Amino acid sequence: MKKDDCIFCKLANGDIPTNTIYEDDDFRVFLDAAPVTRGHCLIVPKEHFDSLEQLDDKVAAKVMPLARKMMKLLKDKLGWDGFNIIQNNGKVAGQTVFHFHTHLIPRYNDDGQDLVMKPMPLKDGDIETVLNEII
Amino acid sequence: MKKDDCIFCKLANGDIPTNTIYEDDDFRVFLDAAPVTRGHCLIVPKEHFDSLEQLDDKVAAKVMPLARKMMKLLKDKLGWDGFNIIQNNGKVAGQTVFHFHTHLIPRYNDDGQDLVMKPMPLKDGDIETVLNEII
Repeated sequence: MKKDDCIFCKLANGDIPTNTIYEDDDFRVFLDAAPVTRGHCLIVPKEHFDSLEQLDDKVAAKVMPLARKMMKLLKDKLGWDGFNIIQNNGKVAGQTVFHFHTHLIPRYNDDGQDLVMKPMPLKDGDIETVLNEII
Repeated sequence: MKKDDCIFCKLANGDIPTNTIYEDDDFRVFLDAAPVTRGHCLIVPKEHFDSLEQLDDKVAAKVMPLARKMMKLLKDKLGWDGFNIIQNNGKVAGQTVFHFHTHLIPRYNDDGQDLVMKPMPLKDGDIETVLNEII
């Protein structure tokens, strides 16, 4: 299923050209138009899902093996020093296009990026309190 | 296969206690000891793989469906506003324990975190140059 007004539906399905590095029946992988590092690309399913919550498990199962394959291609071609995989859901999490996608970000020793989020302040018992709310 | 001196092998296999929210034959999911948000947890395979590069594709295929399942559990229990999935490989990418793991980070409107990496400066033709190196 595609969504008429979704830009990523159009990009993934080739209705709008992209800098594609890989394509199969389920996905297109193309270079991000505003890369944070050299070779930053996106895995985008051809079918529309707003986010990981809505994603079909059969499609979900193919994401990490495809990320591995792309990671190896990009190592061979660009020679990265590290690699981040980032998948954002919801505005507060940094999702800007509401069609499920996964960022593949090759990292280089001199890239000047920093992904670290600060640990939250913790009091004794805080983790056990959260655990008890979850289980 | 486990690695003798790997802390995550010990945590995933229950040799050292964790704040576990889920366990199956392949994985343990437990609360991060230094959470960046409430409910921040890690998906850790019981078998040892240094990073996504070394991961078995059969195990890799189970990561995103399990992330979805945990995302739903955490929404039900903690009521997040967004959700980040982050998987780091290599020191420059922020990997600190060299046993493949995936961060599940519930996000809240007031959590004060910021995951944004800055876009790199681009000249005309830079993206095409990288594309031609890859394909």
